[in-house]
Amino acid sequence: DVYFWEAKGQTPLFPRIFGHEAAGVVESVGEGVKNLKPGDHVLPVFTGECGDCPHCKSEESNMCELLRINCDRGVMIGDGKARFSQNGTPINHFLGTSTFSEYTVIHEGCLAKIDPKAPLDKVCILSCGVSTGLGATLNVAKPKKGSSVAIFGLGAVGLAAAEGARISGASRIIGVDLNPNRFEQAKNFGVNEFVNPKYHNKPVQEVIAEMTDGGVDRSLECTGNINSMISAFECVHDGWGVAVLVGVPTKDAIFKTNPMKVLDERTLKGTFFGNYKPRSDLPSLVDMYMNKKLEVEKFITHRLPFSEINRAFDLMLKGEGLRCIVS
Amino acid sequence: DVYFWEAKGQTPLFPRIFGHEAAGVVESVGEGVKNLKPGDHVLPVFTGECGDCPHCKSEESNMCELLRINCDRGVMIGDGKARFSQNGTPINHFLGTSTFSEYTVIHEGCLAKIDPKAPLDKVCILSCGVSTGLGATLNVAKPKKGSSVAIFGLGAVGLAAAEGARISGASRIIGVDLNPNRFEQAKNFGVNEFVNPKYHNKPVQEVIAEMTDGGVDRSLECTGNINSMISAFECVHDGWGVAVLVGVPTKDAIFKTNPMKVLDERTLKGTFFGNYKPRSDLPSLVDMYMNKKLEVEKFITHRLPFSEINRAFDLMLKGEGLRCIVS
Repeated sequence: DVYFWEAKGQTPLFPRIFGHEAAGVVESVGEGVKNLKPGDHVLPVFTGECGDCPHCKSEESNMCELLRINCDRGVMIGDGKARFSQNGTPINHFLGTSTFSEYTVIHEGCLAKIDPKAPLDKVCILSCGVSTGLGATLNVAKPKKGSSVAIFGLGAVGLAAAEGARISGASRIIGVDLNPNRFEQAKNFGVNEFVNPKYHNKPVQEVIAEMTDGGVDRSLECTGNINSMISAFECVHDGWGVAVLVGVPTKDAIFKTNPMKVLDERTLKGTFFGNYKPRSDLPSLVDMYMNKKLEVEKFITHRLPFSEINRAFDLMLKGEGLRCIVS
Repeated sequence: DVYFWEAKGQTPLFPRIFGHEAAGVVESVGEGVKNLKPGDHVLPVFTGECGDCPHCKSEESNMCELLRINCDRGVMIGDGKARFSQNGTPINHFLGTSTFSEYTVIHEGCLAKIDPKAPLDKVCILSCGVSTGLGATLNVAKPKKGSSVAIFGLGAVGLAAAEGARISGASRIIGVDLNPNRFEQAKNFGVNEFVNPKYHNKPVQEVIAEMTDGGVDRSLECTGNINSMISAFECVHDGWGVAVLVGVPTKDAIFKTNPMKVLDERTLKGTFFGNYKPRSDLPSLVDMYMNKKLEVEKFITHRLPFSEINRAFDLMLKGEGLRCIVS
């Protein structure tokens, strides 16, 4: 949200209602809506699932061709018009969700129907970052029980990736972050070893390879920093190591590596929204929380009323919390 | 062999007996050899399988820590001595095989015991290049039935990769090569479409993406050229595309790509010897040939007596054949 609010290096699209991580209740449905009815509990998702395109039909992808993330569209996909306005001036949508609003209009394909017993003020965080990190580990990196996993970046996405490693039964979960304050918190998410690249005078991939007799079994890059991506790839063990890129890079970034690192049977993969198909998969993620297999509460560090939303942004920008619930 | 014969950019190790793709019969065994006895039919392999190291024990790797390819070692691994000599001067081994010799001495871990009924003058080609290409497709890229596969480089390894795609039931097998003469031959290996990058004024990855509505499902790079590696990665479809690097790059090559290509759910993998564990897996590859599931004969374009080995090298260097059997 902040990135598009600041609109650096992109086409600004104002006025606009931001917000893309939320939970809600269906108030009414439009013509042609088949899978939802008023009263359904839902998670709105910034990327959708039409169910009909080759991506939706592929077991391997969640990048729906129709409803894939589109940051430049400020209108409904059906008729190309906005549903918000003020004094007759249309107000743009954002990511098809615009959840900083009491009521919003969302394409059916961007709403996951969930267990109505789930507390909306908790499971809302499963609609973006936490699912992204968790799925990156559970669906893509797939560490085996007893394996070693390095997590680059210990923000909410990285900690969710660590939570995925913990759930998978990884025995060594190595957190990598430049901010030493994050290490204490990361212990709650299964991270049991730490590397701060600032404290070493060699590349962090070498430090990790030495700690792990040749490299970790899996790594997850959750910062979007291009050097961190390269380190995350180069720190996995030859023969079986898998590195998964999660963080989004800047436009001009170039990934570079020695091709022998690839030839030595390493794998580099990327993931988008943790490879979860939003409508098909989010309901079971909510069920995981309800069955106490997934701890959601520990990501929620603050709660504020909507009137103090700017304070919530400040908390995020200062890195003082993980997730602040605004209601 | 030629690369090390010319010894450009490496430590030359002469005198040396070259040769690493062959088949033979065990004449005698040394102390401690447990799994072989005189009379066994074997394929010598340039990389071994000790059976005990973490790589051998991992299902995901064949890069044995003890017997992994070592181009710089000219002696037996056990006592650090050569078994060849002429007038008292030791002659170096090559890749632990040195098969341009009537008799050679090979570590037990570098010999795969095969069906004694298999014709040695045919299945010998399964000891290196053909297995490498075939395994890259069958074990690593794993194309599904009906999928599209691009093969970069239509030499023996690339054609073996194409043969793997054919066996997997791929419906579109696109061969990419600068040499138009290779296209006719490639049809015998299931290649049914061709792209010659010389005939296009845009990058070959864009040509392939246009031919395939966004990219192929799988690609295999069998040239070792760094630009070809980048093209092979960038030509796979987002969401599910997998690119497998097989060809060995030059020392100073750097793989570069836009990290968004990775984030869009593409996978980059490398393979070594087609991920086959030589002792465990080659016997069943020979069985595939014996059961007529794999066609080996079509790779054999020439036969020459050992006395004409230099002519065999010329044929290879001129790209006039695929494999010349020397006996």
